Amino acid sequence: MTEKMITEIKGWMQEAAVFIKTSLSTEMAVSQKSGRTDLVTNVDEETQALLIKKIKEQYPADKILAEEKGYSTIDSLAGRVWIIDPIDGTMNFVMEQENFCIMIAVFEDGIGKLGFIYDVMKDELCWGGKGIGVFLGEQKLIQPQNLGLSAGLLGMNAYMFGEDIHCAREIGHASMGVRVSGCAGIELIAMLKGNHIGYVSNLSPWDYAAGLVLLEEFNFLYSTIEGEDLSFSGREYFLAATPKAYNEIRTKFLDK
Amino acid sequence: MTEKMITEIKGWMQEAAVFIKTSLSTEMAVSQKSGRTDLVTNVDEETQALLIKKIKEQYPADKILAEEKGYSTIDSLAGRVWIIDPIDGTMNFVMEQENFCIMIAVFEDGIGKLGFIYDVMKDELCWGGKGIGVFLGEQKLIQPQNLGLSAGLLGMNAYMFGEDIHCAREIGHASMGVRVSGCAGIELIAMLKGNHIGYVSNLSPWDYAAGLVLLEEFNFLYSTIEGEDLSFSGREYFLAATPKAYNEIRTKFLDK
Repeated sequence: MTEKMITEIKGWMQEAAVFIKTSLSTEMAVSQKSGRTDLVTNVDEETQALLIKKIKEQYPADKILAEEKGYSTIDSLAGRVWIIDPIDGTMNFVMEQENFCIMIAVFEDGIGKLGFIYDVMKDELCWGGKGIGVFLGEQKLIQPQNLGLSAGLLGMNAYMFGEDIHCAREIGHASMGVRVSGCAGIELIAMLKGNHIGYVSNLSPWDYAAGLVLLEEFNFLYSTIEGEDLSFSGREYFLAATPKAYNEIRTKFLDK
Repeated sequence: MTEKMITEIKGWMQEAAVFIKTSLSTEMAVSQKSGRTDLVTNVDEETQALLIKKIKEQYPADKILAEEKGYSTIDSLAGRVWIIDPIDGTMNFVMEQENFCIMIAVFEDGIGKLGFIYDVMKDELCWGGKGIGVFLGEQKLIQPQNLGLSAGLLGMNAYMFGEDIHCAREIGHASMGVRVSGCAGIELIAMLKGNHIGYVSNLSPWDYAAGLVLLEEFNFLYSTIEGEDLSFSGREYFLAATPKAYNEIRTKFLDK
């Protein structure tokens, strides 16, 4: 079952990626959601529709939580739930035509089973699942070293860093350096490859769901920035890091 | 002459890239320069030595300004001067094994003639020269739109943004979003492709020399953050942007 599902999801992501790449050569309809820097395009919506159609054909009884309209809330995580971000990093998609991801997660009764993060233009697919391990394309990744905060790079939300929300500026300065990609998927892949030690941001469930499944497999720690369980509902300040860096961030900055 | 030189430089960069990629699979010697986040590796130094050897063989009378030891200052820009960064983004090179560039510029009596920025792991070479245009690999780029500050993404030095040096935080918030890659070459390529409208950082001559040749070709404006000519000597706060964004940044934030 799981193997069949993995093959299906990879196929759907490839199909979605072809659609997105094709759309880059045509005029896009860009509109604002909550403000001038929160964008959505027809391509986000059509990619989501494509993925939802696939899921409904194969798994009609499953529930779906997804970024764009009509699917952005869910009553509970009971049963099997698909959590989808059709284009994570829409601003980058519009401005750079690169540095965006498709993300898909499969949860069962609140437990993350499968996660897929696809950096479309780099053609880099990071995927895996509970008890399966984490892969980059065909290659099985090894668990990153448990580095401390001062020993690695930290992915960051620019606004939190600039405004020092929840000590984000001090946390950033205590690391080896802050990186801002504007795409949660890219930051999560960087952690899973061992390139970054952590990520501090303000995220919705579809931004972190696939990442959590994979982070869990490598024993990274994650929570809301207050140390609570993530709610899978609305935006929350998000912290994920190596166990060593996570505990340092908590004790030195957040729980003082 | 120019065409021969372009072919030579591209060949040297490819050779340097092969050397760097090979070195990724061996143990690296990492040491600190001015502080814990200012790193240099044996690969930086050996890559610089490789490039300098090529230049000295072909152009023994030319002068060289380069990041690593023995070459980091120059008496004047008179004559033909090669300005080299063997690995721009050494922190990324060490931590991520990607997101770093090789950069080479050729100046004659202070005038930028040729510029090459090579994102090694992405295999993306942005190059060109005075009167030649700007290319990405074999493809000639078109001049990016003259967008204003609020219409595009801005590359930023994280420290300047976090500490609000020269209004960097306000400038960042007025843009569509801030991106921090930790590599000047990547930020400059993003501007030349039209993905970012500008770049605010703290740079040495080898960080900006190749970029200036290419920015000039596309009529971007650049200067120190105070609006002075860049000195090609030591680190300086650096601003480059589309004409519209550059003038907005000056009048709304820097010259008030």
